[in-house]
Amino acid sequence: MLITSYAVETRYPDCDAMGVVHHAVWPIWYEAARIDWLERAGFSFERSQAEHVNPAMVDLHMQYKGALGFPETVTVTVTPELLAPKKLALTYELRRADGTLAGTARSFHIWTGPDNRSYDLEAGLPEIYAALKKAVEE
Amino acid sequence: MLITSYAVETRYPDCDAMGVVHHAVWPIWYEAARIDWLERAGFSFERSQAEHVNPAMVDLHMQYKGALGFPETVTVTVTPELLAPKKLALTYELRRADGTLAGTARSFHIWTGPDNRSYDLEAGLPEIYAALKKAVEE
Amino acid sequence: MLITSYAVETRYPDCDAMGVVHHAVWPIWYEAARIDWLERAGFSFERSQAEHVNPAMVDLHMQYKGALGFPETVTVTVTPELLAPKKLALTYELRRADGTLAGTARSFHIWTGPDNRSYDLEAGLPEIYAALKKAVEE
Amino acid sequence: MLITSYAVETRYPDCDAMGVVHHAVWPIWYEAARIDWLERAGFSFERSQAEHVNPAMVDLHMQYKGALGFPETVTVTVTPELLAPKKLALTYELRRADGTLAGTARSFHIWTGPDNRSYDLEAGLPEIYAALKKAVEE
Repeated sequence: MLITSYAVETRYPDCDAMGVVHHAVWPIWYEAARIDWLERAGFSFERSQAEHVNPAMVDLHMQYKGALGFPETVTVTVTPELLAPKKLALTYELRRADGTLAGTARSFHIWTGPDNRSYDLEAGLPEIYAALKKAVEE
Repeated sequence: MLITSYAVETRYPDCDAMGVVHHAVWPIWYEAARIDWLERAGFSFERSQAEHVNPAMVDLHMQYKGALGFPETVTVTVTPELLAPKKLALTYELRRADGTLAGTARSFHIWTGPDNRSYDLEAGLPEIYAALKKAVEE
Repeated sequence: MLITSYAVETRYPDCDAMGVVHHAVWPIWYEAARIDWLERAGFSFERSQAEHVNPAMVDLHMQYKGALGFPETVTVTVTPELLAPKKLALTYELRRADGTLAGTARSFHIWTGPDNRSYDLEAGLPEIYAALKKAVEE
Repeated sequence: MLITSYAVETRYPDCDAMGVVHHAVWPIWYEAARIDWLERAGFSFERSQAEHVNPAMVDLHMQYKGALGFPETVTVTVTPELLAPKKLALTYELRRADGTLAGTARSFHIWTGPDNRSYDLEAGLPEIYAALKKAVEE
């Protein structure tokens, strides 16, 4: 199974009036880590754009286990949970530089095609599907 | 039970390169609707800031049921689920101007005090707690 | 000359760790006020999108004369400065609810067409150009 | 004179519906490059926070010379223009990976102290002022 790590630096305006990174910033980091995972698994963002095939966000569940500040470097670990012709699910762990866990998340996606409707990735882009399947299962 | 509606207009930069509001914008709307619910239930943002008592985000679970664009006006309905001396849970429905459901969410919070640690709202601010209790139960 | 006012409410995450609205949020407000001005002057956002004709941002000059917080309602007044077949310039005043001036700005745009290059609005969309000309001059 | 370079990667949600990085994102990059310049010149963000002394944004003037997309890495070059006991001015150049110029900017700041009012940096923090003076002049 392909498990990846993606490092992110917090930015000054990410912090709110309490001096902690606002909770709406975290989904941006999970997304960046997801795009990186897909790229490494064999489905680059450029290819995704060219084919108009995307993992549309359907469900995002985040746990906030601690506060983050600025400046700070965090690392998002991405672990695949499920790949099906029309579905993708990934889980995330977000850790501080000292290794402590700051948050976890799970995202669930349906593949969408050029018409913005559900898309069968296995049928439409079989070589991409095979590469992702390998990244999820092996 | 106090159920509130909060209207939000999408903004041009909320949309991503696919022309739909990015999923990281939705938590900002849920938060604005939550702040409004708390205010109407008897705990204003100003009071919250003055007391250094906040509903810290611990768990946020969002379902995206459809895409939103710009310009568009959406309405967030907030329904309380749980209030306890140290906890708060709310659920949300996000609807388009035509009434169709675009998303749902649930947020779970722990009350935190001036030391940024768990806080007993019933013990610390009993009149606020009583007001919120009434908004949740009656 | 068409001078418009556009009201905006600050949002909690607009504030940074110093508790004031971050300076990168202000351009979003100026843009919203500009879109509103264009709509009222006769060039709606929908039409602009349909024609793939936009006032591309070329120069933005902002003065910050005071800090803003949350919650706060501010009003942006938009005054046209210049309209030419390939150019648009607008100026802005941003005031607090009590009328005090918090900021000023000037934006300069070139009209761009479907190829993302400079576009002659007078030649391409004469009725739109005439409406804007009237809003700027009369 | 201390001239620094700061690299930034664009993020997917930075792009708007036209597929280009929204103009309100650029100030965030200029700020990150400015914080980096100040750190290298001898005034770290941590020290700035501890002393409650900040370069408050008073005037920001940006030129947009081209569009940026995602993914893309840009580099911001920071050049000091002016340091005085109560003032700071910096200029910026933003270049794409291929070296082409995408934008320029100038920011003007007044030093503010714990009371959020104008602050004499030379009088208040002479060793910081001396370090910055050296970075600007030598």
